[in-house]
Parts: sequence; C-alpha cells; structure tokens
Amino acid sequence: MVKPIGFVQSTLRTLADAPNQAFEGAPHAVLEIDPAFADALHRLRPGDELIVLTWLHLADRTVLQTHPTGDPNIPLTGVFRTRSPDRPNPIGVHRVTVTALEAPTSLRVEALDAIDGTPIIDLKIALRESPEA
Amino acid sequence: MVKPIGFVQSTLRTLADAPNQAFEGAPHAVLEIDPAFADALHRLRPGDELIVLTWLHLADRTVLQTHPTGDPNIPLTGVFRTRSPDRPNPIGVHRVTVTALEAPTSLRVEALDAIDGTPIIDLKIALRESPEA
Repeated sequence: MVKPIGFVQSTLRTLADAPNQAFEGAPHAVLEIDPAFADALHRLRPGDELIVLTWLHLADRTVLQTHPTGDPNIPLTGVFRTRSPDRPNPIGVHRVTVTALEAPTSLRVEALDAIDGTPIIDLKIALRESPEA
Repeated sequence: MVKPIGFVQSTLRTLADAPNQAFEGAPHAVLEIDPAFADALHRLRPGDELIVLTWLHLADRTVLQTHPTGDPNIPLTGVFRTRSPDRPNPIGVHRVTVTALEAPTSLRVEALDAIDGTPIIDLKIALRESPEA
C-alpha cells in the first residue's frame, strides 16, 4: 500500500559505506521527488527541517532480534528497541535540514544516512515546538 | 508491502477527538502488538522512549496541499511541509514513553495522538544522543 514518492541520490553506494546514524558522518544527499508530487512541496524552502521516511529496500524483514550497532558485546535486543534497518516493516526515519532547492522537485539536504537509490515514502515538517520528531 | 505489527487501543474514538499534536493533550494509549512479533520487543522496558509509526487508515491519500492545523488564515501549503494526516503515504510519526508492560505484547504509553484501532507499523528506540527522532 506504500508507494515511493521519490528516491535518494547519495554518494553512499553500499550498506558498508553507510554510518549507523547520520550524526556519525553521513554525507549530504538529494531528495529527488516525483514531479507528480510537486504540489505537495509548495512553500518548502532552504532552512526547513524535515522528517524523511524511507523504505530500506535492502533490509531483511525476517529479523526480530539483533545486537545494537552490530556490537556482539551488546546483548541480543528486539528490533523494536533498536534502530536496525532489519525489521518487519523496514522504514527509515531521518531528520534533515533542507539546504537548497536544486530544481522544483530536487531538495538538497544535509547528513542523510540512506544509500543511493533508497525509495522515499514521506516528508514531514519537523516540530521544533515539541520534543518529538 | 507494509503489514500491521499491532493496533492502537485508545479512548480517542474519532478524528474529531484527536488533538493536532500529542503535546496538545493526547491521552495515554496501549500498543497491542501481534504476539507473532513478541521476540522483537525483547529488552523493552518502562521508561523507554519510542518512535511509533502508524498507518493513518482514515486519511485522504489524494490531498497534496492543506491549510496547516486546519487554520484557513495560514496559506495553502504542500503536505510534505506539514504534519497533516492527509498525504500520499499516510504514516504517522509519534514519540512516546513506555510507562508499563501490561502483558508481554501490550505496551502502555503516554500521550499518543492516534485514534483507537489505528494500525501500528513500526517501533524504534528514540535517540537521545541526536537531535533526531
């Protein structure tokens, strides 16, 4: 029932390149949004902070437990208590800042931990007023 | 491709009951997780902060622009720059604190702005170390 609204363009080409979290050194990226959704970007501008939801298409959806951050010294933990991409519905949640509109449906963003070609399934404005996403 | 992993139990019965954002006064709720995913909850405990992703099943997926918070004085804005439930892929992002495990797969949480019966599609630990969700 989920359909991609666009795709990530990034210099991260493989999972091995990807940091565990954006604050560990993810590069900038471009969100290439399908022009069919151009109207849904109306009033977006550089400086906006967004929550980007991605479909982590390379994830293993059968995994229910994992060692967080891949560290075997951390006990096996249910994936719902981790940020592992491997989970029943492999949706990534990323907070980014829009730095430029390169084209009407191309958003340059800072520090996105998603590899090139990852489907984008939603964008939302981040809420500065709340302690939430 | 998304499958529910559980459902929200809440005293919020209709969209008219639901606040625009959790910090505007949402009640506590219970996340009833499908026992098939019990292993994915391993090590979750009261006090944990989670990101809950929901499928906003009553949303209108054809809406591309809206007046934020329903206020007609705010100019029409693309839904990707809002938190409107109406959007191409109606996924809700909610930050909650687990207050109790009522049963192995029943999590009581504070302040969830989702109505009774809303499908849950993912849980993730919230990251305190980062400015992100």
